[in-house]
Amino acid sequence: MENGDIPEDANEHCPGPQSESAGKSDACEGCPNQQICATAPKGPDPDLVAIAERMATVKHKILVLSGKGGVGKSTFSAQLAFALAERDFQVGLLDVDICGPSIPKMLGLEGQEIHQSNLGWSPVYVESNLGVMSIGFMLPNPDEAVIWRGPRKNGLIKQFLKDVYWGELDFLIVDAPPGTSDEHISIVQCLDGTGVDGAIIVTTPQQVSLIDVRKEVNFCKKVGVKVLGVVENMSSLCQPITDFKFMKMSDEGEQKDVTQWVWEYMKEKAPEMLNLIACTEVFDSSGGGAVKMCNEMGVPFLGKVPLDPQLCKAAEDGTSCFANKDCVVSAPALKKIIVQLIETNGWSMLLSNGA
Amino acid sequence: MENGDIPEDANEHCPGPQSESAGKSDACEGCPNQQICATAPKGPDPDLVAIAERMATVKHKILVLSGKGGVGKSTFSAQLAFALAERDFQVGLLDVDICGPSIPKMLGLEGQEIHQSNLGWSPVYVESNLGVMSIGFMLPNPDEAVIWRGPRKNGLIKQFLKDVYWGELDFLIVDAPPGTSDEHISIVQCLDGTGVDGAIIVTTPQQVSLIDVRKEVNFCKKVGVKVLGVVENMSSLCQPITDFKFMKMSDEGEQKDVTQWVWEYMKEKAPEMLNLIACTEVFDSSGGGAVKMCNEMGVPFLGKVPLDPQLCKAAEDGTSCFANKDCVVSAPALKKIIVQLIETNGWSMLLSNGA
Repeated sequence: MENGDIPEDANEHCPGPQSESAGKSDACEGCPNQQICATAPKGPDPDLVAIAERMATVKHKILVLSGKGGVGKSTFSAQLAFALAERDFQVGLLDVDICGPSIPKMLGLEGQEIHQSNLGWSPVYVESNLGVMSIGFMLPNPDEAVIWRGPRKNGLIKQFLKDVYWGELDFLIVDAPPGTSDEHISIVQCLDGTGVDGAIIVTTPQQVSLIDVRKEVNFCKKVGVKVLGVVENMSSLCQPITDFKFMKMSDEGEQKDVTQWVWEYMKEKAPEMLNLIACTEVFDSSGGGAVKMCNEMGVPFLGKVPLDPQLCKAAEDGTSCFANKDCVVSAPALKKIIVQLIETNGWSMLLSNGA
Repeated sequence: MENGDIPEDANEHCPGPQSESAGKSDACEGCPNQQICATAPKGPDPDLVAIAERMATVKHKILVLSGKGGVGKSTFSAQLAFALAERDFQVGLLDVDICGPSIPKMLGLEGQEIHQSNLGWSPVYVESNLGVMSIGFMLPNPDEAVIWRGPRKNGLIKQFLKDVYWGELDFLIVDAPPGTSDEHISIVQCLDGTGVDGAIIVTTPQQVSLIDVRKEVNFCKKVGVKVLGVVENMSSLCQPITDFKFMKMSDEGEQKDVTQWVWEYMKEKAPEMLNLIACTEVFDSSGGGAVKMCNEMGVPFLGKVPLDPQLCKAAEDGTSCFANKDCVVSAPALKKIIVQLIETNGWSMLLSNGA
């Protein structure tokens, strides 16, 4: 990458359009880009210089990635941001999912707009130490589809990195769309040289999801981004037994809601059941789940987060699950993962150093 | 679109690079593309002619779309393909998710390769009347990331449409990645004029998913693709109480498996509980779910499919859920939706006409 992106239609052994020998090497003979490469200005992209300046005030840059969509990546990003902010870190959350931005909703910021100052675009703030940026804040109509091909998406991502005034940040969390395409290449190229700490990859336990995670891990290896670890989300569904509805199948095969009766029955006959948590595996993990995959690929496994309807609800409401006493199942699991991340990576030092 | 894709860097009021006045209109003055536009050959893209020829033997073309990822779009595509093939239709399933192809696994075709004949690329066949094409069949190493920007993905999609020899098909089902970007624009542009029947949009009930579905519906309206209907997937989870595991939270916040004890306790104290079905809403639908969204946007609602661990398992195993007696909850729901689609759209006529 140091000699620039190799064009799709380049000859084999292309030295790269930013190379000193671009357009002049033997390999360039007959290449459709030869003339452009030979005459184009060399040297660093001025945008990258501007990005490096912006990022100079950001201590840690963390990417949150997934192979497949819908595994809870944005929910994790949002809760990670909440958790770090609750620990008094200065946190920025950047949503680079251009066609499907979920972050505004998940941070309770729907309908907000960004403002411009002479310092740049101002993030939208949840708290004074938690700022958020997303294309979701820029759409005049939230239902409008963003029908953009890659180059336009890349342009906006670059602008987010170049033009947003975050100020001093301990953490910039970048929530990426699923996959390994334009958005991912752009973010990695733009942040190349600014010191990305690494990527957290979120997955679900079933094979069809893990296939894509393996691709994501290999993407990270290829572009030189450290994998901080893998989170297995929706490992199983766990919730207090009192949160279920109960149905009884009648002799005619109809389901009848008997929840009210079950409550009374349990209270009277089997009170010890009222404190239980009922769990079921939704997505098959008989293939060994993310733990096995992490072992095979030599990347850290961070932990499992159960599928918790209360966490889904927190995501819908745009609130922190850590401040919600109903998130009894997911909040401790998430907290454990986040504490482990903080400790393993020495991030807690930031605070004690007075940062 | 009729005068060609307008380049990103075009002047305002660009007449389109395929227009008669391309490069010559007043609006072209000073545009970086002026010279290329003025001299480039006009007329229909020869690839589109080739695609139209290929598609001439395909009676119905159906897109399966979603706003967000992980809502079960590929699972639905796969089961729709199985269902139509089981009704003796000739079915093709094309996976245009280039960076995260799930279709090979979901059809039980992992590790298969495509072959080339003088007629074109040969799909991989599950049955003689169910052929499948995916980039998954072309990767030397399944873990390898496909790190491609838009133009390269678009090129492959075009090739899939141009070079795959499907033969006579009743249905070509196109499984798209989530969103409204390169893959979607490409597939719609390439199939423009070949008669796309419409799109089925898959979603989950919560708002954060429905926000993206609204975008997807608007995408369809904008590009002129009819919305055949919306499927609400993972509506709720229901299973016999005896299929759950039970956990008890210790004072230290650790979970302890007490399933065995609960069984004995229920048998002794509360035997009537053993016949119950426990249900829970995993994803919050208090906002009205997909039904309300469909009403508001004037598109058909096709039905709900519950979150069924057995359906997830069928997807993992690459099998049809209709042939699986364990899929007691999801198979009837899916079947109802598919029968409704067939009837509403008059597809059953195909068979009785001897097609």
